[in-house]
Amino acid sequence: MTSTGVWLIGARGNVATTAIAGARALARGETDTTGLVTAREPYSRLALPDVEELVFGGHDIREKSLLETARDLSSSGVPSPETVDAVAEDLRRIDRRIETGTAMNCGAAVDDLADEGPLDDRLSVDEVVERIRDDYRAFRREHGLDRVVVVNVASTEPPLDDSGRYDTIDAFERAIAADDRDLPASALYAYAALVDEHPYLNFTPSTGSALGGLRELADDRDVPHTGRDAKTGETLVKSALAPMFAGRNLRVRSWEGHNILGNDDGRVLEDEANKAGKLASKGGVLDSILPGLEHNRVRIDYTPSLGDWKTAWDYVHFEGFLNTEMTMQFTWEGSDSALAAPLVLDLVRLLAHADERGEGGLQRHLASFFKAPLGVDEHDLSRQFALLDEYVDRHAREAAVE
Amino acid sequence: MTSTGVWLIGARGNVATTAIAGARALARGETDTTGLVTAREPYSRLALPDVEELVFGGHDIREKSLLETARDLSSSGVPSPETVDAVAEDLRRIDRRIETGTAMNCGAAVDDLADEGPLDDRLSVDEVVERIRDDYRAFRREHGLDRVVVVNVASTEPPLDDSGRYDTIDAFERAIAADDRDLPASALYAYAALVDEHPYLNFTPSTGSALGGLRELADDRDVPHTGRDAKTGETLVKSALAPMFAGRNLRVRSWEGHNILGNDDGRVLEDEANKAGKLASKGGVLDSILPGLEHNRVRIDYTPSLGDWKTAWDYVHFEGFLNTEMTMQFTWEGSDSALAAPLVLDLVRLLAHADERGEGGLQRHLASFFKAPLGVDEHDLSRQFALLDEYVDRHAREAAVE
Amino acid sequence: MTSTGVWLIGARGNVATTAIAGARALARGETDTTGLVTAREPYSRLALPDVEELVFGGHDIREKSLLETARDLSSSGVPSPETVDAVAEDLRRIDRRIETGTAMNCGAAVDDLADEGPLDDRLSVDEVVERIRDDYRAFRREHGLDRVVVVNVASTEPPLDDSGRYDTIDAFERAIAADDRDLPASALYAYAALVDEHPYLNFTPSTGSALGGLRELADDRDVPHTGRDAKTGETLVKSALAPMFAGRNLRVRSWEGHNILGNDDGRVLEDEANKAGKLASKGGVLDSILPGLEHNRVRIDYTPSLGDWKTAWDYVHFEGFLNTEMTMQFTWEGSDSALAAPLVLDLVRLLAHADERGEGGLQRHLASFFKAPLGVDEHDLSRQFALLDEYVDRHAREAAVE
Amino acid sequence: MTSTGVWLIGARGNVATTAIAGARALARGETDTTGLVTAREPYSRLALPDVEELVFGGHDIREKSLLETARDLSSSGVPSPETVDAVAEDLRRIDRRIETGTAMNCGAAVDDLADEGPLDDRLSVDEVVERIRDDYRAFRREHGLDRVVVVNVASTEPPLDDSGRYDTIDAFERAIAADDRDLPASALYAYAALVDEHPYLNFTPSTGSALGGLRELADDRDVPHTGRDAKTGETLVKSALAPMFAGRNLRVRSWEGHNILGNDDGRVLEDEANKAGKLASKGGVLDSILPGLEHNRVRIDYTPSLGDWKTAWDYVHFEGFLNTEMTMQFTWEGSDSALAAPLVLDLVRLLAHADERGEGGLQRHLASFFKAPLGVDEHDLSRQFALLDEYVDRHAREAAVE
Ligand SMILES: NC(=O)c1ccc[n+]([C@@H]2O[C@H](COP(=O)([O-])OP(=O)(O)OC[C@H]3O[C@@H](n4cnc5c(N)ncnc54)[C@H](O)[C@@H]3O)[C@@H](O)[C@H]2O)c1
Ligand SMILES: NC(=O)c1ccc[n+]([C@@H]2O[C@H](COP(=O)([O-])OP(=O)(O)OC[C@H]3O[C@@H](n4cnc5c(N)ncnc54)[C@H](O)[C@@H]3O)[C@@H](O)[C@H]2O)c1
Ligand SMILES: NC(=O)c1ccc[n+]([C@@H]2O[C@H](COP(=O)([O-])OP(=O)(O)OC[C@H]3O[C@@H](n4cnc5c(N)ncnc54)[C@H](O)[C@@H]3O)[C@@H](O)[C@H]2O)c1
Ligand SMILES: NC(=O)c1ccc[n+]([C@@H]2O[C@H](COP(=O)([O-])OP(=O)(O)OC[C@H]3O[C@@H](n4cnc5c(N)ncnc54)[C@H](O)[C@@H]3O)[C@@H](O)[C@H]2O)c1
Ligand code: NA
Ligand code: NA
Repeated sequence: MTSTGVWLIGARGNVATTAIAGARALARGETDTTGLVTAREPYSRLALPDVEELVFGGHDIREKSLLETARDLSSSGVPSPETVDAVAEDLRRIDRRIETGTAMNCGAAVDDLADEGPLDDRLSVDEVVERIRDDYRAFRREHGLDRVVVVNVASTEPPLDDSGRYDTIDAFERAIAADDRDLPASALYAYAALVDEHPYLNFTPSTGSALGGLRELADDRDVPHTGRDAKTGETLVKSALAPMFAGRNLRVRSWEGHNILGNDDGRVLEDEANKAGKLASKGGVLDSILPGLEHNRVRIDYTPSLGDWKTAWDYVHFEGFLNTEMTMQFTWEGSDSALAAPLVLDLVRLLAHADERGEGGLQRHLASFFKAPLGVDEHDLSRQFALLDEYVDRHAREAAVE
Repeated sequence: MTSTGVWLIGARGNVATTAIAGARALARGETDTTGLVTAREPYSRLALPDVEELVFGGHDIREKSLLETARDLSSSGVPSPETVDAVAEDLRRIDRRIETGTAMNCGAAVDDLADEGPLDDRLSVDEVVERIRDDYRAFRREHGLDRVVVVNVASTEPPLDDSGRYDTIDAFERAIAADDRDLPASALYAYAALVDEHPYLNFTPSTGSALGGLRELADDRDVPHTGRDAKTGETLVKSALAPMFAGRNLRVRSWEGHNILGNDDGRVLEDEANKAGKLASKGGVLDSILPGLEHNRVRIDYTPSLGDWKTAWDYVHFEGFLNTEMTMQFTWEGSDSALAAPLVLDLVRLLAHADERGEGGLQRHLASFFKAPLGVDEHDLSRQFALLDEYVDRHAREAAVE
Repeated sequence: MTSTGVWLIGARGNVATTAIAGARALARGETDTTGLVTAREPYSRLALPDVEELVFGGHDIREKSLLETARDLSSSGVPSPETVDAVAEDLRRIDRRIETGTAMNCGAAVDDLADEGPLDDRLSVDEVVERIRDDYRAFRREHGLDRVVVVNVASTEPPLDDSGRYDTIDAFERAIAADDRDLPASALYAYAALVDEHPYLNFTPSTGSALGGLRELADDRDVPHTGRDAKTGETLVKSALAPMFAGRNLRVRSWEGHNILGNDDGRVLEDEANKAGKLASKGGVLDSILPGLEHNRVRIDYTPSLGDWKTAWDYVHFEGFLNTEMTMQFTWEGSDSALAAPLVLDLVRLLAHADERGEGGLQRHLASFFKAPLGVDEHDLSRQFALLDEYVDRHAREAAVE
Repeated sequence: MTSTGVWLIGARGNVATTAIAGARALARGETDTTGLVTAREPYSRLALPDVEELVFGGHDIREKSLLETARDLSSSGVPSPETVDAVAEDLRRIDRRIETGTAMNCGAAVDDLADEGPLDDRLSVDEVVERIRDDYRAFRREHGLDRVVVVNVASTEPPLDDSGRYDTIDAFERAIAADDRDLPASALYAYAALVDEHPYLNFTPSTGSALGGLRELADDRDVPHTGRDAKTGETLVKSALAPMFAGRNLRVRSWEGHNILGNDDGRVLEDEANKAGKLASKGGVLDSILPGLEHNRVRIDYTPSLGDWKTAWDYVHFEGFLNTEMTMQFTWEGSDSALAAPLVLDLVRLLAHADERGEGGLQRHLASFFKAPLGVDEHDLSRQFALLDEYVDRHAREAAVE
């Protein structure tokens, strides 16, 4: 197998820390592969890079170390104190590879997190992009990696207005050259990846590679990319349940979702600007599966005492035969980072696989991982998994033919 | 379109009454097709008999009239008083077509329901079967029907011990001839249907056509049949949700389900003997989708004040990445009969369709309708719907070719 | 018994309509006293006016008739169609007694409800007050009533800023004379009641008689008054449950409450201004019982499909011995008007009782009925009931002595 | 303050271990008094023995050490690993003071727990009692204690049939002399305590001191005793909530409770015999507060993966004004031992207080702690707390007079 590097934007955040700690815990035999989608049949048949061999680095804008983040998470229960102890040395080593990034247009809530001035305080947009490209290249070179997958797990940005203006690669590059300070950080990181042919993954609702110009770039250079907003909790359940109502021709009248969470992601999402992006990707799932839905509201509230746990309460009011009104409710209580982290590892493995095989552009078979899968309209979880099954079948057949 | 009769075993029960009232309410423009699976795309493209044209008759063992049952149901909210008024005359007319059936081996709880002695009190098994066959034939003749679909919606029987002894059609017919009083009523009704080539539907967990001998008979005569135990509430949700846990490689440790319901079905299921059959078909769904499940319990309890409503509370304890323990709970509150009745109509339409086209034997594409689909191991709801989609595609292609 | 009139401000609203329909249904033997607090022991021992004898009239600002409102409510299930039929004639008769009121400072959401211009569009404040006083007096005279209890069940107003300026009766009366158009409608209705010695009940979170000036007036003239914001659903449950945590020295960290409702009250509360008053009275209960509470949020959202039903989901995160973190959740599903209406009747009866006995001023023993009981700091439901028990004991002892 | 010993029957069980670990953690400054009722106002004003000074010993029938039990509990989250480490030496020391007890009539499920033969395998009833008395006395003597409070926290026994035969102290003592092997272990432990004037606490639903003969003995010798079945979870919530329905004259039709738990208590309660006692004490609370309740069912099921956690789901179906049917549901998720352990310490302190002041016999003011409080019919939690408040007031007044 070829060697794979993982460059995490937001490397000191909860999702990144849990992904790194988890990969290292696996390497050290401290845990098993529960929760890793690529560890189960039939996906485990693909020739994917080993989780244990992944090499980590990344950008962040604050200084709180990986180990500190891990210990804080541990006080909410995940990872266990023993696991943190077992990987503490690894976390210290990886922490030294984290560089300062850009926080351009990430909003006031993110600015509050930043300890020292991010790159954009000091440099022109063009210089910021150059620094990021250098960071990616240096990481690859220093660790002798065959490829680097760039992953956005930074805080959610406010949505970008009028994104049509960056609809071509030309427009995008002209904006960089003109020091256009409306460009969002996530798009700069994504550009820096794609232009040098690093596969790119957007785990967040931020813009990332979704701009027309960046999709063009990925297609031109044949670089695999995927996103956006990983589907880990309430929305995952919705995408499994809503097709049941549709399948049985039950008319959902109202679907009310209320999420409470206590981590930094929740703190940033308290800011209405940052929350807007998240709500948009969460809302789309139901509207797509249940076109006649009268009322679809999602609330996200910050409840500090919950730490890294997220509780969602959903209330579904539906109508059946003879206009009978019925209800279903569910409560979901999950550790946000424990749900998200293995998907980061899954997606890195699958992007590396695609890159190795020259399968560039949007990765439609990864739709099951996302709330707003780029380039795919299908939101029914089972049908999304079917896309991945077909991908595996195709590769299995090709392997058999070879 | 050819004319279709529906012969309901348990014709005065809640499911039967709601199906009849619903079909007549549709015929009279009092309601719409919400909840009818065959009314939605793509299934609505099949050339199915119109619900409005179905002709009803049936067997029961008690005298409480259809109209009385409808009024009682109405006091639990479904159908509305206006709907009952609109179809009252239809119900009175259909009630006169209901004949006394057999309650052999239906258990003490069912014997308590019977007002006058059922057939088996007075006749040999052989005579009982003859009477049932006569009833089916008379119905067909008197109403000039092209076909009669026989539907078991009678109370759940206790499970049959040692069902292997009826594994061939010969063994089954020898047992009838020998007046073997171990034969369960549901199998006698099913035999009487299949032997005269009436399509047969088992909506309940009772034995019905599941015996080896009757499956052989259906194959021999090429009669379509299907079953068993319609999937309407908690189990339906399980079959939609459990694949999500499996898909994400989340390890479900315990799945606890607690159902409370207040109708006669609940009263009969209070009897441990009758309950055994129900629990068996409910339990299988999870064991099939989640092979590593440590603990899978389903409780069904009778709570009279709920009337025809069933509330289920399910508690799912699962483990994710880094051995994180998480939980999901749901509550489902539905009107049992409103959920079940449209499926009776759907299945009658689909069986008539198959019969018209000479598609005899087990109807595997109907698996999505059942908790324990005969001849199909697939319990994932989406994949079961895919079987029906393929069936429709096949017929659409054939129709296009013609 | 002396005859009692009930003058409802917001007489065509849901609570008023249900209270009237309920009283008339009781008078006509169509229902029983379930839900009426004063119908149970020991309160039933007080010499209260009969519900069946109450005479109704009121103000509103829209024209939709009582009967129309009742029929709309009935489509959400309460009262039943039969009940509405039984009292239809009563509702028509009472509807003719409803006069146009004032909507001063009730906010844009209420202005949207008004069909024709309310009084304040045309008259000076002073003239508005005179008209209201005339309406009360005419009602009393025309029906030969011994007393009229004035009840505010109008839509919630936005909270009043700087209410200190109306802290004396002089200041309040000077404001009227000066045509001060900051005065809220609810205070004008309350003033008009108290100045002519009609007992006054504020069922809503609006200002009503809570102003210093009006409390002074009530004391001066010895008129009984009480309020505010009846405790009918989620807050009622909180006031029963929170003392359990306090009693056991369990530390509640977060109490999250999410209410969804579909009636006009919900529609008005969608307006942030009107919602502010409601949230204030709801929030106080927990802060009083659980002084160390870290996080206390209440959300009220409008979900049209629910009609007159309100669903609340509450999530309680608490800490016990050895710093163990635990949770409790509840869901409450109630018909708002069915919960509120009997309390209107209870409070009218209890105010009439106090008035008859010359017990003027704030009625502290009625605290159990309110979210923000005027003049009482006790929010523990059981202790609030103890205040009413003591009141009954006192009257029972006095009666025994006589 | 005088020195107080705590002799725990079932000393190696979860409740005992958590109580001991908690007391020692407090002594070592590792935790705070959250969850201790006697640590809050106004109860903290009583002159109670310090938790930090309590001396522990006890009986058990199995050998698994306190430290092992603590480590197992810790893997369910409570106490934390750090706490266990901090008190490990204390646990080892106390473990050496645990003697083998009797398991007479504790049922097969308890016999399965026993590692070596309990006393009753080898000795006559009379000898068993003498051994127990010796154990109590030796503990008191060796540690120079002023008093020893004997606490039953052993596994729940099956209920005793025909308990009337032990209605006098004479009858009870004759039974011992006659080697009557129907006597339950809990009554032998209780007798041995009371006869030597050790205060006695029955934390479980087992018989203990509830027999007529033992109540007579306690009265004769003026020894304080209390019980039975501590109210820690679902039943606690019921006793707080049910009075709300009664207070508002809402008619509860069905109250359905489903408990799932995963510890040894749950394992023992899987045995129908042992479960019977538990269900009896749980059921009484609602029947007392809601006399018209139609349907009251409690289920307790064993779900191993939950470890020491207990989840209860309760569903309340009630009727309000105008016969409106409404529902409330709650889910309670608590650590059984963390909820129970502080109450053991509270009750020991309060019994020692009573004993010091010569307040023998049943301790009615402790009703709030129990599901089936001996000698008290009041089940409303707030009114039960009022009994304790009055006790404190009385002592405060007496102290002021002195
Ligand atoms: N946890 C989940 O279940 C889940 C699911 C889907 C998506 N997400 C998304 O993943 C992202 C990360 O979530 P988290 O819980 O780890 O949040 P977090 O707040 O713990 O971590 C975010 C990290 O990003 C850093 N950061 C912010 N802006 C940056 C920038 N411009 N450049 C570099 N670093 C930056 C922050 O300093 C922080 O260390 C969020 O956008 C979240 O919405 C999470
Ligand atoms: N309602 C649902 O959601 C649902 C779902 C799946 C399966 N089912 C099954 O459907 C069946 C009917 O349910 P229901 O709610 O209508 O019950 P029900 O008790 O209201 O009706 C059953 C009827 O069957 C009659 N009956 C009993 N034994 C008979 C016999 N041997 N021959 C003729 N009639 C007989 C009874 O007299 C009664 O009228 C049950 O077996 C139930 O388990 C119902
Ligand atoms: N239903 C409950 O459980 C409950 C509990 C506590 C308090 N409340 C309060 O009771 C009030 C009534 O609730 P509802 O559900 O009946 O609302 P509703 O919207 O159905 O009725 C309010 C009525 O008041 C009328 N109105 C508005 N402003 C008026 C004014 N200035 N003068 C005269 N009439 C006016 C409206 O036209 C409407 O007819 C609200 O303030 C609500 O917050 C209700
Ligand atoms: N945890 C709670 O919330 C709670 C609440 C109320 C009552 N209780 C009761 O407290 C008791 C203890 O609960 P637990 O969770 O600690 O159970 P557990 O099974 O962990 O502990 C019981 C202990 O008692 C021992 N034991 C059994 N029979 C004995 C006997 N005859 N003599 C001496 N020791 C004996 C067992 O060996 C075991 O060590 C149970 O009766 C339970 O019903 C517990
Ligand atoms: Na409901
Ligand atoms: Na939980």
